[in-house]
Parts: sequence; structure tokens; C-alpha cells
Amino acid sequence: MKRGFGSDNHSGFSPEVLQALADANTDHALAYGDDEYTARLEELFRETFGQQARVYLVFNGTGANVLGIDAMCRSHEAVVCAETAHINVDECGAPQRVVGCRLLTVDTPDGKLTPELVKTRLHGFGFEHHSQPKAISISQPTELGTLYTLDEIRALANLAHSHNMYLHVDGARLANAAVALGCSFKQMTTDCGVDALSFGGTKNGLLMGESCVLLNTVLDIDMKYRRKQMTQLASKMRFMAAQMICYLESGMWRRNAEHSNRMAQLLRSEVERVDGVKIMYPVQVNSLFAQLPTDVWHRLQERYFFYDWDEAADVVRWMCSFDTTEDNIHSFVQALKEELCRK
Amino acid sequence: MKRGFGSDNHSGFSPEVLQALADANTDHALAYGDDEYTARLEELFRETFGQQARVYLVFNGTGANVLGIDAMCRSHEAVVCAETAHINVDECGAPQRVVGCRLLTVDTPDGKLTPELVKTRLHGFGFEHHSQPKAISISQPTELGTLYTLDEIRALANLAHSHNMYLHVDGARLANAAVALGCSFKQMTTDCGVDALSFGGTKNGLLMGESCVLLNTVLDIDMKYRRKQMTQLASKMRFMAAQMICYLESGMWRRNAEHSNRMAQLLRSEVERVDGVKIMYPVQVNSLFAQLPTDVWHRLQERYFFYDWDEAADVVRWMCSFDTTEDNIHSFVQALKEELCRK
Amino acid sequence: MKRGFGSDNHSGFSPEVLQALADANTDHALAYGDDEYTARLEELFRETFGQQARVYLVFNGTGANVLGIDAMCRSHEAVVCAETAHINVDECGAPQRVVGCRLLTVDTPDGKLTPELVKTRLHGFGFEHHSQPKAISISQPTELGTLYTLDEIRALANLAHSHNMYLHVDGARLANAAVALGCSFKQMTTDCGVDALSFGGTKNGLLMGESCVLLNTVLDIDMKYRRKQMTQLASKMRFMAAQMICYLESGMWRRNAEHSNRMAQLLRSEVERVDGVKIMYPVQVNSLFAQLPTDVWHRLQERYFFYDWDEAADVVRWMCSFDTTEDNIHSFVQALKEELCRK
Amino acid sequence: MKRGFGSDNHSGFSPEVLQALADANTDHALAYGDDEYTARLEELFRETFGQQARVYLVFNGTGANVLGIDAMCRSHEAVVCAETAHINVDECGAPQRVVGCRLLTVDTPDGKLTPELVKTRLHGFGFEHHSQPKAISISQPTELGTLYTLDEIRALANLAHSHNMYLHVDGARLANAAVALGCSFKQMTTDCGVDALSFGGTKNGLLMGESCVLLNTVLDIDMKYRRKQMTQLASKMRFMAAQMICYLESGMWRRNAEHSNRMAQLLRSEVERVDGVKIMYPVQVNSLFAQLPTDVWHRLQERYFFYDWDEAADVVRWMCSFDTTEDNIHSFVQALKEELCRK
Repeated sequence: MKRGFGSDNHSGFSPEVLQALADANTDHALAYGDDEYTARLEELFRETFGQQARVYLVFNGTGANVLGIDAMCRSHEAVVCAETAHINVDECGAPQRVVGCRLLTVDTPDGKLTPELVKTRLHGFGFEHHSQPKAISISQPTELGTLYTLDEIRALANLAHSHNMYLHVDGARLANAAVALGCSFKQMTTDCGVDALSFGGTKNGLLMGESCVLLNTVLDIDMKYRRKQMTQLASKMRFMAAQMICYLESGMWRRNAEHSNRMAQLLRSEVERVDGVKIMYPVQVNSLFAQLPTDVWHRLQERYFFYDWDEAADVVRWMCSFDTTEDNIHSFVQALKEELCRK
Repeated sequence: MKRGFGSDNHSGFSPEVLQALADANTDHALAYGDDEYTARLEELFRETFGQQARVYLVFNGTGANVLGIDAMCRSHEAVVCAETAHINVDECGAPQRVVGCRLLTVDTPDGKLTPELVKTRLHGFGFEHHSQPKAISISQPTELGTLYTLDEIRALANLAHSHNMYLHVDGARLANAAVALGCSFKQMTTDCGVDALSFGGTKNGLLMGESCVLLNTVLDIDMKYRRKQMTQLASKMRFMAAQMICYLESGMWRRNAEHSNRMAQLLRSEVERVDGVKIMYPVQVNSLFAQLPTDVWHRLQERYFFYDWDEAADVVRWMCSFDTTEDNIHSFVQALKEELCRK
Repeated sequence: MKRGFGSDNHSGFSPEVLQALADANTDHALAYGDDEYTARLEELFRETFGQQARVYLVFNGTGANVLGIDAMCRSHEAVVCAETAHINVDECGAPQRVVGCRLLTVDTPDGKLTPELVKTRLHGFGFEHHSQPKAISISQPTELGTLYTLDEIRALANLAHSHNMYLHVDGARLANAAVALGCSFKQMTTDCGVDALSFGGTKNGLLMGESCVLLNTVLDIDMKYRRKQMTQLASKMRFMAAQMICYLESGMWRRNAEHSNRMAQLLRSEVERVDGVKIMYPVQVNSLFAQLPTDVWHRLQERYFFYDWDEAADVVRWMCSFDTTEDNIHSFVQALKEELCRK
Repeated sequence: MKRGFGSDNHSGFSPEVLQALADANTDHALAYGDDEYTARLEELFRETFGQQARVYLVFNGTGANVLGIDAMCRSHEAVVCAETAHINVDECGAPQRVVGCRLLTVDTPDGKLTPELVKTRLHGFGFEHHSQPKAISISQPTELGTLYTLDEIRALANLAHSHNMYLHVDGARLANAAVALGCSFKQMTTDCGVDALSFGGTKNGLLMGESCVLLNTVLDIDMKYRRKQMTQLASKMRFMAAQMICYLESGMWRRNAEHSNRMAQLLRSEVERVDGVKIMYPVQVNSLFAQLPTDVWHRLQERYFFYDWDEAADVVRWMCSFDTTEDNIHSFVQALKEELCRK
């Protein structure tokens, strides 16, 4: 399929991943994570996120998010999140089925929670008829491509902790955020008081690499059983670990994220010059949300694959990948212009 | 780690898998299975198991088994299985947590259910205090390395259907069974009346490749949502599909299974000549269960990795892989003899 | 405790209930609903709601609601309801834990869903990442004491059915609604196209009497097992059935509901004459929501028990019961006036 | 229905229960257990079981058992119990659905676990593929009408505690056991090291009265939310508390249990004199299991209601109630003799 702007998981994987898999494919290794690659990975996460960090490799973002929620909440508890959060909208109810808890959602202008917004959900403590708020979950970057500053994350962590709650970050695209903010993973998470994290690499050039990372050790209880019971324990885990090691050690995470972010900026700057298209949110990472006439985006979709985000509002999402080229951008913008003219 | 006899998932993957991954790594593809590789795979499963077959790729055997159970049973229903079944012993209660159903277990001499054994569990129909039996699940081969004949499978399917129940096969090692019985996958499943199947390739040379296959179309309801909600939907699914296509089309499934079965026979013939070791079950696929003095297998474990199966009974499991060599066998048997002499 | 305005479940039970229990306490009866009282009750529900009606007695409103949701939805499906709905706010996440499904909530001005509001949630059909909308649930009367007209119920049923969805009514206080609207239970439910109903009597003078009623026979699948498995099957069910028979046959449901509604109207007319208190919603059944100065309702709570509804907005709830007297009202309004003067 | 020997929940309730309900039916009381009756009940349970005891009233035995299991185990953990245990056989899989855990069952000759039998299930600790044993659950009396001695209970508690596990007692008929053993409730539970208890009164003369009692305070975490979320929180709880207070304070528990036990002994002594009937287990409380010719018990069932226990083995259960009379026994035995003669 032609390279489009559908999603960063429409791309394949970076070449170095194949080499990492080949290198790890020697002789035997214990299954289920008792191998030297996983041991090395665990060390690498401690180096990256601080010595208290504990990483649990899982298969996908849903698994990472649900395992993280499971670590923080029992079924009678609740997670406060944005209405647009992936855990709310895009997991087909996995948290409800697997953990059995409630999500307390908040409408936001830009996908970002604030202490004020969260506080509207912090009531009913001690009242057995109400699910008890136990965690705040944010996405960094958000589903709308916006970013929390470190101060904003810290403020939410403080709010959570002052209510005996935890702060969770869905970091399926955390590399894009780190690159955009010019900070380390640790500065953006551990140092801000984040308790649990979904850390992903699949959308940034891995074949498959997602993880649930606990940054607060009080959460690290019975995790290996919970991961297994929710069907997220890999047998030949060395190959997942090897990918993630490659991701972190080779600088691939940075290279790929820098590239896809840069492509989104290029796309933004090109689109800004085009009449008839409105960019909806600040373009901070690798996605761009645009509003344009119905017939135009319908026709453009026949030439390039991308998703409508809010069909009623004529808002679509264009997402860049690690393998998006400048040529891809220019061709796409040219097509956009053509369809706008045909209007 | 030195090649041992711990498990067939201690080995890596066959070289052709790497090529399949590399070949699929071109340009973009829709995520979550809307790609041409998955489409080709679906076709291939219809060719392999009959036109009614529907395949759902998942990450691991636990996912395949739980999705299959979910397709057959609601939470108030029950699955009859052997006490030794993987779904009973080795999933950490995943069926209970994710589906919420009961397993009705039966003691067996050799891991194999029979109609007579199953019938001891078929009562309480219509009585709301009892979980309603709705499926029979067998493993082919069993966890003890034994095989059901086609007639035995057919008899269990007939029993199931006569009670408005389904027959499920855990086929994590189905290739080893097909090779051993000299029959096709379809002859062993569809043609015997099997309704649902876990079909795996990971233990037989894939990096990661498992699936839930529905052979009875009445079960194919809302499966895509159920797979997603139980956290088993892969984003870059083309790479799982590409592996499984390679597995089926290249003959790799047969080559690898023939080899590991043959290595187990070699191991058996060598061990039979050794005094002091008792082989517990017929060696029909790629594993061998042996009883030997406690101190001997303890010392042998220091030299080779393998699992005790029943510590109290001094029974251990030795399992061959697609990459086990004749030299591996001879060296291992030599080590066994040495440890027996030191007794 | 002095009679207050806390809730209609703060009152005891009507005297005729005690007689009904005594009358049913003769000799033996089969347990778990296989008795003549339950059989008579089932007949009575068919007479009341139409011949297709199927009633399942349960212990409480939570049980009735969760069993009804379970009849309509599997875990990957979703129920659209008002943000204020009891199933959303006051079940401590029981639908999520027991059914595993999502609730898709809508903000409403007065606790009432409209087709327009519901439609904002009806999207993502067929998209496996989204929980699939499968039911609409309304409360009649709503948690805010407001009522749906028969036409409004019919419109929601039509909307549901046009999307292959069901309409559920939480009728914990359905008698109050029927009396207020001057219609029969059947006219308000079956005749409007309602598919499933929680029908309660506990808040209207029973000791304990709640039920899940299926009005659409396609939903009546495996209900007895589901009720049992979710812990809602009573052993000496004849005594629950006897109460509900008494409720329906003696006219107690009407007498009690008429009385509590009338007391609420008396309270409304008295409060309307008082300066400094704002009545928030139309008083249509037996509750009244009032806004008054913080210190006033705080002091008044020291004299009478009632709940704050929205502490931040200074809105409190006053609820009348079947045993509320005119004297109770006058004394309460007198106290209210006194506290307002002390301001 | 004529008084039979079907179950002790086929009888109604003792006369004093009606009075207790009437007495509690005055004015208003807070709902959901914040009333003076429930407070008195909590005090009474502390007096009865020791000051550390915490009681949670629930609706039925299933609720009590599932709440108790929920207090002891998370979903990846397991409860060891007899194959015949009510939680295994007669809850339609409620523990699996609501808690999500496994039950590890053991075959027993007489419904009683022993340390030796339990130990066969105590393995796999720390192995994430296996559900982790976390509780032992026994029924006192067992489903077969047999009793544990205090020493036997203590031994199981010691075994549990030595493995960081808990001991749970299903005491749906605990009064019958206490009377038979001539000991107090506390001697049989708290003093033996029992951690959690289902304590019931419904089968011994209450209309409805069951409870989950925690004797080990470490288990008392978030119980009120868990009870609510699993649908077991009563609104007008004062009437459940009032019954249970009556049960404990009036000596009704003892009177009724003594009577039904005595009736079972009378039945035993009469049946022992009859040729052709074999009594299967020691008759220790209020039930008797008998083996007799198929046609005889079939014909007898046409005259008296009772359950077959093991149809294949021609074993039936006869159970006495608090309202069984000597005349009932004599008439029943006469009928038995007649049917045996007709053979």
C-alpha cells in the first residue's frame, strides 16, 4: 500500500529491528522472560527511568494500559481520564472487562486534563455507592497530538498523590513527546511523579514492542501473575526484549521520533499556506488535525489513506511515520491543493 | 544458553521466518488485520481447514485458548477438559478471569479424554445451580505427548454435538500431531467435527504465531470485538500473518515437526537402552516423560535445562525442538548415563 | 429515627406486607422460585405487562439493573444513559464488574435522554476498537424526579430499535411515574416498545421487592443461570413473591405512590411560598430538589436528615415516602423557615 | 406443599422472625446499614466471635461465599476446596465470574478436607503459569452432613497459615454444627484460626439472613465497596439485621438447630431398622444420605419431595428442618417401608 497518513502503525519496522531479531536468534533461551535479553532490558529501564523502575513487556498498547490500570485499581475503583483518552475510546471496553473498574471521563478542549478538570471528578470518597477515584491517566502526547509540559504533569501527579491516587501515563508515543520537549524519558515521568507508564515502540519503528512500566514500587505486586492471567505473557520474550533494547540503545527511538515530528512540521507549514484548510490543534508531535470541506477530504481519501476524526465536524487526522519522506509530504499537499481546486 | 530439552519454545525461530518478516516490511499496510497479508492468511486457512474456517490471529496460546472458549461459552457455562490440560493448569486462571466460566476437569491416565470420562461430567443440564457444560476441550497432542486417533476425536465431537456442546482442540503443537498421524490438519479437525481450534506455530519454529480458528460458523459472532477487548488485537498484524503464511506455504510446519518428532524417537530409543530410567507414556510426538532417581535428575539438571513434571513421582519432561540435533541427543544421553553411574 | 426527607427507602414497609409474609409462611415450598407464589407472580406480571412478559425476582435495584443489562449486552457492547443515571453513578461500577461492558453517558439538563442526545453516542458501529452501542437505559422517573411522557419513551424505543438496540427502563419508582402520568404500567413500557425493565417496590412500601422484567422475548436467554451466577437467586423466594403479589394485587403500589407524590406536591406548594429557596426541576413524583443558602441547609440537616445533591451548587434533595404525613411536611417547612430567618 | 425432606430452605420462618420484623418497622432508619439495628448486630457479632470480628450482611449464601472469597483472593489466586463444596458445585460459577479466581478441588471420601488432601494442591508457588493457592475453604457441616472436629479445623488453619494462606468456612448451617459439637461459634471458628466465614440463618428458620464474617482483620479492606459492587448491598438493611439479632439473641438458632438435628437422628434410628436401605455417611447434623433401590426412591419421591444426590449410585438426600415433626418422620418412614415392600 502506498505510504499515506493513516497512522504511524501503518508503517513497517526500522531496518535495525530485523538485525536485532537475527542477532537474538541463537541457540536456546528460557521462555517467558527468564532470558538474558529480558534481564538486560530490565536493567536498561532502570537506567532510563531510575533504579526503582520495573518493566513488564506486553504485546500491545491495550495490554500495557490494562495491566497498568490493573496495577493501580481494583474493580470498585476508578480512573479519571479525558473523554478522548485511548483507554476510554479505543480499547473496546478492555479496562471494564479485564479490570472491571470505571473510567471517569472529562471533556477537554485539547485532550489535556488539568487539575481543575480532574477535581470535578474527585468526590464521593468513602461513599460505597460510588466507584472510588484511584488514578488519573493522561496520554503524552495526547490523542490530539498535544503535549503536557513537565510542570503540567507534575501538577497532576501532585493532585493525584494528595488524594492517595496514582498518575498513569499512556506513552504509546512517548518518544515523540520526549523529542518535542527536549527532555529525557525520566524527566518527563519519574521526575514529575508519574507512578505507572505505558511505554511503546511499535508506533515508532518497532515490529512489536510495548511495555507496562511501574515507577512507583508500591504498585509492583503480583504483576507477573496478573500479566499472565490477562493473556499478555509472551513465550519467546527474548525477541520482544531484543527489539526494545535496540530501540533504546541504538538511538532509534530518537531518530525515528525526530523524523516523524519533523515531517509533521513540514506538513503543517505546507498546509498553513493552503486556503480552505484549518489546523485544529497545535502541531506538537507527529500528527495534524485539519478541518476541510466534506467533499474535499472524501476525494482526497480516494488518493491517500487517512482517518476522519470527527466526521460531523469535517475534521480529519493526518499522521506522519518514521518512514514518511519529504516527497510524500509534497505529493500529498499537491493532491490536497488539487482537490480543493476541484471544489 | 546451551540447547537443552526444556521446551520447544526455548528454541529461536527458523531462518525462513526472518526472510518472511523482511519481505513483508515494505511501505505501508493497514493495521489491525485489514492488510493483504492477513487477507491471504485467511484464504490459506480456508484452503487448509475448509471454506467455512475463520481464523483470528492472536499473540499467544493463552490468547488463542481463551478466545476460543469465549466463542463457545458464556460465563455460566463450562468446559470439560483433562485435569492436565493447559487451559486448566497453565493459564493462571485466564479462562476464569476473562470468560468467567468454569472448567470441569477429569482425571485421565494419559492426558486423553474419552467419551466415558467426559460423560461423568455431563449432568445438571437445566439446573441453574450448576454451570452448564457447553464444550469439551482436548489437546492434540496432549500435555503428556500422547495423541488422539481420528476416530477418538470424532467420538468426542459426536458426544459433544449430541449434548448441544462444542469440541475444542488446543493445537499449540498440532503440526507435530499431523506429522505423527500422517494426516492433514483438516482430516484431524474439520473432518472429525471439531468446532474450534487453537492453532499454533510458535513452538514449531515461528517467532510468534498463534491463532484461534473457528471451524463451525455458528460460533463466529462478534469475534473481532471479543479479541480486541481481551487485549489480543495486534496493530502491525501483517508481520504475524506473514509468519503464519510462511509456516503453512513453505512446508516449514512439516519439516520442523518431522524433525522434532524424529529427535524424540531417537531420544526414546537411546534412553530405552539405559537401565534405571522408565519412560512413562508412549512417545508419539516431540516429548518424552521419564522417571528416574531423584539425585540423578537433579544432577542432570545442572548440566541441561529441563523441567520436572511431577517432582513427587520423580518424573521429568524432555522435549525436542525443531533445532535439536542428533549430537544434542547423544551428548544428553551420555550425560544421563554418567549421572546414573555416579549414583 | 425521626421521619425525615432522606429517601423513600428510609421508611419501613406497609402493614399489609407483614400480613402477606405471615400468610405465605405455611408448611413447605420449593426453594429458588419453584413455588406457587412465584408462579402466581409470573402470571400477574404477564397480566400486568402483557403475555410476553417474563419476570425475574432479585434482591435489590442493583441486581435488577445489572441483570437487565446482562440480558441486553455482552461485555464488548455499551449502554447509553444519562450521566446522572443510577446505573452510572450509584452502583459502584457493578455493570462494569459483573457484565464488563461500557456505559456511554450523556449530559442532560434534567436527567432525561432525548433522541438527539442519544444520537451523539451512536457511532463507531462495526469498528472493533469501540464498544458497540447496544442499549439505551432511562430512569422513569429520573434521578431528578422528572418524567418521560409516553411519546418520549416511544421515541427512544424507536431510535433504539432502528439501530438494532434495546430500550431499558430503570423503574425503581415506576409506580410513582404511573400514578403521576395516569397510565398503566403496560402503557408506559410494553406499549411504548420498552424491551427490559427494572421494576421495584422497595422504595414504595415493600420490605424487599425488586425484579428484572423482560418485555421482549428475544432477550429471555439463560436468564436463570445468569441471575444465579451473579448472586441474585433467593432461596425462600416465596416470601419475595408474596410481597410483590401483595403490592400489585392489593392496590398498595397505587395507594403508596399516590400518597408520596401528593406529599411532594404539598411540600412544593409550601416551599414555593418561602423566599430564599429555589426549586430546581419540575416536581413530578415524590422528590423535590431545592437550592438554598449553604448555612441554611447545613443547619436544617441537623434537625432533619436529607442528602445534599450537589454540594457545590447548594442543591439538596427532599424525598417523600409512603408514610410521610402532612404534619411531617408542615413541621419541616416550619423548620426551614426558622433556619432561613436565622440567616 | 406437604412437609417433605427436600431441604431446610423449603420450610418457612420461625414465628419470632415475624415479630422481629414488625418491631423493627417503626418510623425511619438510614438505609444501607447505617441504622441502629445493623450497629447492634455488629456489636453482637463482636460479642459472639471476638472483638476483631467484622460482619457484612448479604442476601444469600452465594453472596456470602463470593464476598468471602473476594476478601481473601485476587483473580490470579485460588481456593482449595472439596470437589463436593457448595462453592464448587452449586454456585453456577459465581466465584469464577465475580472474583475471577480458580477453585482447586480435591476428591474426598466424606466431604471433608484433610491437611494431606490439601497438600496435594499446594504447589506451583511463585510460578506465574499457575494460579496461586491463597485460601482453603471448608463447609461446616459439609454438604454430606459430616462434621469437622475442632482439632481438624485447627490443623487446616495451621496448614493455611504456614503457607501464607487463609482458612474460610462456609457456615450456611453453622448452628447445626455448633449444637452437634456442643461448642460455641467462637470456639469452632475464631479460636481455631478461621479467617473468614459465611454465617447463615436462612436454612435454620430465618426468612432471609446471611452474612460474610471476617475474623482476621487483615482481610477487612474495602469490603463495603466490594459488597456493593457485587450487588449484595441491601437498602432496608434494618430488617435483615433485625432478623439476625433475633436469631442470635433469642436462642432461636440453638432451638431450631437442636430440633432439626434431633429429627435427623430419629430418622436415622428408624431407617436403620429398615432392610434395604443403606445410610452412607455418619448422621451428624440434620441430613441423611441413603442408598436404596431405584424404583423405591422413585416411587417414594411421588409421595414426598426430596432430592437424589447421586442418581447413578441410587443415593438420595433426606433433610430435616426446624419445623419437621416426629409425625412427619414416622409417616415418611412408613411410606418408605411400604414402597420397599412393593418392590
